[in-house]
Amino acid sequence: MKLDDANLIALARGTAVLGAGGGGDSRIGLLAAQQACADHGPVELVDLDDLHDDDLIVCCGLVGAPTVTIEKIVNGAEGERLRECVETHFGRPVGALMPAEIGGLNGLQPISWAAPMGLPVVDADGMGRAFPELTQSTMNIAGISPGPAFLTDERGTALILLADSAEWLERILRCVTVETGGLAATADYILTAAEARTATVRGSVSLAMRLGQTLIDAASDPVAALVESVSGHRLITGKVIDVERRTTGGFVRGHALVEGLQGDAQRVLRLEIQNENLIALEGGEVRASVPDLITVLDSETADAVPTELLRYGQRVTVIGFPCDPIWRTERGLELAGPRAFGYDLEYSPIEELHAPAQV
Amino acid sequence: MKLDDANLIALARGTAVLGAGGGGDSRIGLLAAQQACADHGPVELVDLDDLHDDDLIVCCGLVGAPTVTIEKIVNGAEGERLRECVETHFGRPVGALMPAEIGGLNGLQPISWAAPMGLPVVDADGMGRAFPELTQSTMNIAGISPGPAFLTDERGTALILLADSAEWLERILRCVTVETGGLAATADYILTAAEARTATVRGSVSLAMRLGQTLIDAASDPVAALVESVSGHRLITGKVIDVERRTTGGFVRGHALVEGLQGDAQRVLRLEIQNENLIALEGGEVRASVPDLITVLDSETADAVPTELLRYGQRVTVIGFPCDPIWRTERGLELAGPRAFGYDLEYSPIEELHAPAQV
Repeated sequence: MKLDDANLIALARGTAVLGAGGGGDSRIGLLAAQQACADHGPVELVDLDDLHDDDLIVCCGLVGAPTVTIEKIVNGAEGERLRECVETHFGRPVGALMPAEIGGLNGLQPISWAAPMGLPVVDADGMGRAFPELTQSTMNIAGISPGPAFLTDERGTALILLADSAEWLERILRCVTVETGGLAATADYILTAAEARTATVRGSVSLAMRLGQTLIDAASDPVAALVESVSGHRLITGKVIDVERRTTGGFVRGHALVEGLQGDAQRVLRLEIQNENLIALEGGEVRASVPDLITVLDSETADAVPTELLRYGQRVTVIGFPCDPIWRTERGLELAGPRAFGYDLEYSPIEELHAPAQV
Repeated sequence: MKLDDANLIALARGTAVLGAGGGGDSRIGLLAAQQACADHGPVELVDLDDLHDDDLIVCCGLVGAPTVTIEKIVNGAEGERLRECVETHFGRPVGALMPAEIGGLNGLQPISWAAPMGLPVVDADGMGRAFPELTQSTMNIAGISPGPAFLTDERGTALILLADSAEWLERILRCVTVETGGLAATADYILTAAEARTATVRGSVSLAMRLGQTLIDAASDPVAALVESVSGHRLITGKVIDVERRTTGGFVRGHALVEGLQGDAQRVLRLEIQNENLIALEGGEVRASVPDLITVLDSETADAVPTELLRYGQRVTVIGFPCDPIWRTERGLELAGPRAFGYDLEYSPIEELHAPAQV
């Protein structure tokens, strides 16, 4: 399947939903991908089964605080430089690119890098959503070494990191990202296609496209159509009444308050943020939490609003929906459950939190 | 010439003097070098003229805050790991190691790494003293690219940095050093012997050994013997009455006050510190400044006291002496003069500051 202008638009709307507020603004990713495909032709989306077992897949994206992506633009050569570093290090050609995370602009970033190189993008990613830390990947759950990892910035500095520990990889790449201005391009968990088949969330690019198409096709109530297609739950419909946001340590951290309108009047939902929406609280009770996805939608258009663009007065509907099952395993929750983010909360699947009351 | 137990002791006393307070405690470097030579045999000290033009020389040492070297011990495998990274990257064997700086423990560090690998150490270094920043090297003055640079820590993480800018190399390696605990092992400015012949301070290992031997041989007044051998100036003899020292941003920063005794009574000398002693001030007047060397000596033994071991009550003699002429060039002063450290002062050579008054 070719990624062209029409399905890129659907893809961008879908990656915004799967970003759970993070992964960077999909519209920026869309503009870059459209330009790259206009300049170099459409990019092929391939299934992992269509690749040879030992084809080299570069899991890549931008790392940093999404707030920075608004102001600091990549220079366009990052993808080529990452590929050069990977090919020099491994001594063989790269076969395809894969989004490190399907959420937000990172779900589209490999497309703009793949277009000038004539490489395909695989229909899979390493999170099935967006998460703030490099440790929070399905490849980490699968026990694959995160290194060698590669990082480059818009000045042309490039870094190759040999580390077996995902925690140290995250710490070192994060501190370098902060030093170089809060945003950098990375490739880590370099995989063979054979490894990728069992260590990634498969079909996530197609899923994002289908979700985007659902929004495009919805005749009257796109929010309802989306909630149904993701087996989700509407948490509140209302207005953003407070946003506290800091860009710190290479992340966006803060919270937002959404006050209910009409049927939800008198209710207030609090969103805890670290790049992504991590936890939705109401009156001290958890309404949804990581690793499940919490996405803030424009109440009219159902376009997902990334955390860096939340602002006072926005009319929004907050929805929650189940994560990929891999995140509900013991190791998945250890890496990306509420406690991994410092919240002293037990994880409850969103469908249990919102189960119809038993009579 | 073989570096054995006897001349290592002289070398360590000399590198402490040339450290100008920095480069880490030479005694730690001596213990490691002695152990390595006991385990693997003495290390050959070679002149650059004795190497083939294209022999690969690895300029290496520890980077970080000297205070950290007191508590955080290297694991011993850093040198071998740096060599592996360099050889993999360049695709050919390393010919010799060279101290990045002759000052302090860094003047000895390549010896403990070279011993188990059976490599020689060259009689040269990249500073002719110790300086806090990686930018402050004679290779930088010579216009040689600082990258690729290599960094490793005691956990086995290794990093290869491709950068043409010494400033970015310093910033990135420094922030990674801070993240990994304040001390790391680095190799940068990988040189051929032909390049090294015109881009280093030659003979500095021998010089350090000669200075150390001067101290060992001095019958009665080692301070006077040392001052004479370095064409130096005694700035004050007294007692340390105040030390302010912070380990911050991968450096030791602070100041120390030395109050004069006997002939120097009523005088107070202030030393400004960033790893090294940068500037000596008296009543607001500069008595000596970078790039010239300011070294604090134990008044009895003339052993140099590194800045991280300065403490109240020490009886010390502070001396200043001329740096290698390369640092007095326009580019040298730009990189390592008082203004490079944020002091709004014009550099005056120490021999002019202490010239006999004209009649």
